Amino acid sequence: MIVTLLTDYGHDDEFIGVCHGVIHSIGPELRVLDVTHGIGRYDVRHGAIVLRNTLPYLPVGVHVAVVDPQVGTERRAVALATGDGRILVGPDNGLLSLAWERAGGVTLAVDVTRSQHRLEPVSATFHGRDVFAPVAAHLASGAELADAGDPLRPEELETLELPEPRQEGDTLVAHALVCDRFGNVALDVDHERLQGSGLRLGEAVEVEVGEGELLVYEDARRNLALAVNRGSAVEELGLVVDAELRLRRADA
Amino acid sequence: MIVTLLTDYGHDDEFIGVCHGVIHSIGPELRVLDVTHGIGRYDVRHGAIVLRNTLPYLPVGVHVAVVDPQVGTERRAVALATGDGRILVGPDNGLLSLAWERAGGVTLAVDVTRSQHRLEPVSATFHGRDVFAPVAAHLASGAELADAGDPLRPEELETLELPEPRQEGDTLVAHALVCDRFGNVALDVDHERLQGSGLRLGEAVEVEVGEGELLVYEDARRNLALAVNRGSAVEELGLVVDAELRLRRADA
Amino acid sequence: MIVTLLTDYGHDDEFIGVCHGVIHSIGPELRVLDVTHGIGRYDVRHGAIVLRNTLPYLPVGVHVAVVDPQVGTERRAVALATGDGRILVGPDNGLLSLAWERAGGVTLAVDVTRSQHRLEPVSATFHGRDVFAPVAAHLASGAELADAGDPLRPEELETLELPEPRQEGDTLVAHALVCDRFGNVALDVDHERLQGSGLRLGEAVEVEVGEGELLVYEDARRNLALAVNRGSAVEELGLVVDAELRLRRADA
Repeated sequence: MIVTLLTDYGHDDEFIGVCHGVIHSIGPELRVLDVTHGIGRYDVRHGAIVLRNTLPYLPVGVHVAVVDPQVGTERRAVALATGDGRILVGPDNGLLSLAWERAGGVTLAVDVTRSQHRLEPVSATFHGRDVFAPVAAHLASGAELADAGDPLRPEELETLELPEPRQEGDTLVAHALVCDRFGNVALDVDHERLQGSGLRLGEAVEVEVGEGELLVYEDARRNLALAVNRGSAVEELGLVVDAELRLRRADA
Repeated sequence: MIVTLLTDYGHDDEFIGVCHGVIHSIGPELRVLDVTHGIGRYDVRHGAIVLRNTLPYLPVGVHVAVVDPQVGTERRAVALATGDGRILVGPDNGLLSLAWERAGGVTLAVDVTRSQHRLEPVSATFHGRDVFAPVAAHLASGAELADAGDPLRPEELETLELPEPRQEGDTLVAHALVCDRFGNVALDVDHERLQGSGLRLGEAVEVEVGEGELLVYEDARRNLALAVNRGSAVEELGLVVDAELRLRRADA
Repeated sequence: MIVTLLTDYGHDDEFIGVCHGVIHSIGPELRVLDVTHGIGRYDVRHGAIVLRNTLPYLPVGVHVAVVDPQVGTERRAVALATGDGRILVGPDNGLLSLAWERAGGVTLAVDVTRSQHRLEPVSATFHGRDVFAPVAAHLASGAELADAGDPLRPEELETLELPEPRQEGDTLVAHALVCDRFGNVALDVDHERLQGSGLRLGEAVEVEVGEGELLVYEDARRNLALAVNRGSAVEELGLVVDAELRLRRADA
């Protein structure tokens, strides 16, 4: 079974290599796939969105996510099974919640804070190494989820709320979800919401927060996104994530 | 069979992880090797040079390259076999051409834009995920190249032209091909061209575009390169790639 | 057997991908694990500390480390066996020394500068590709260490000296070992040294080099570290690695 890793650890330090080392030490035959380690530092929401978006493209396996500003506090560490047969492992801070909503909900959850699989002594700061990686490695090697920690009711798990897009007259009020290296901005607007908004894919759009001709297009996740041809919509608009954008057709 | 990946996707986003996910979903036993994802954004030439330079050190396999400023337009997606038994997959924009010239030329080419192996629906922006990765995974898993798309004559493929170095009196006119993190500058000068240029490896060289004592040496690709001891020739010269350099021996 | 890689190559260039390619070409079934490639450029000490710290979390294997400011000079390339059954491969510049001290010392060492396993011709600048990766791949594939090069007495190997922390009255004089992306500073203070220093984990500390309230805590390596809650101790103190810090309890 495959183990996937998504974190805010970056590539400058050895954190990821150590997690790989722990997993291979426990399960020498396991495959480990790095989804990304470029999540914004401590940006739980960013991690939650990327995990949700990437999961459909990953083989069914044990999916570890670590963006953990509260590491060292009382926040729980959890592992859970989803309706479509995946196992998610990470801190209980909402990071996993958008993913499990898309993956058929939670069918079983355990608190792995004091899992028998953790590495002792558990450090105050590096639960990726001491809790999440070893728990995932044991689960991917065939250990039972129910034996990995203390029982937890799915309703007790933390969830994450995202802002909702809305239509105001001829203006679609949307939010910047994720900005990528190519300078494109993913919005929280799907196909359905686009209908009746007056906006059309590939056409120029007026964005109230900034200037310059912007285009709306459908991105690789089939959601609305903003782009400037060969330029950066992110820089053009001076956008920060979660910014509220008010969109109208350019000729409206 | 191994699949290798070379792109301009960087490491900040999840693009690479998603491609790995797609490949492992199709061929769970496939090995995937990341050559580099640090190609300059949209820099087809940089990608073409690095692909050519690295290919001899990679096991024979299916080699995916994606630097694709025209994604979403009518440019073709292609897969092709080389004289030395490799398969190259990528956009038809010249990116693959320097590599196949070194690898024995093209023996068979297909247009995979509408390949049976692609993921439907194909997005407008992420053909790495929707076209190149799945086509490569099927080919590495044993699918026939001829069945992966529509036949294409090798002469129809796009190629890339590089500037040529030349000798002008006691001056060698060369070009900066690639600059690396150690601040060294690879030039388009090989052993043969070096003979009769008046330059000698390890000796000081005068470079018309800048100041400071520079040394010419033979880099790991056995081509001429410029260095400043413990310093950065890139910064010293204020170089941009493709810059024309005029080189003379320092005492000439 | 697994091969692990730790270098200062970064991720922008293709150096790492080429080393992976060389290893897979020699041993197609070998696992390769990237510990980190984010070691400071030419920073042998940083590499030595990270190698020592990460080794206990890596499966027993062949461990390659390359931080090599003297590449191309007469410095030796070495491979050695440790008391706990690992093999270390790298330049003989002290980079491996902190690791082998923790791993049971050196039981056998060979000079692999002219190893039968190297790739010919060996370039002047890229021994990762031409010497270290191929030697490691052959060793991990079962080649005998004694046959990989010329015999070398362990006493001939270069070692690295680190500064020592000390107590001066109510002040603990420590040194910054490594700074991470989260802005925390690892110090050369272990549990034993902490006893009798007057400092307590989690309490505020006065640091003579800077201002602002800092906390001391025990990091993931069980050594003392400095942090600012949600801030960066690195920036707060304007720290450079190896900086000498003078620590007193904030209320002392």
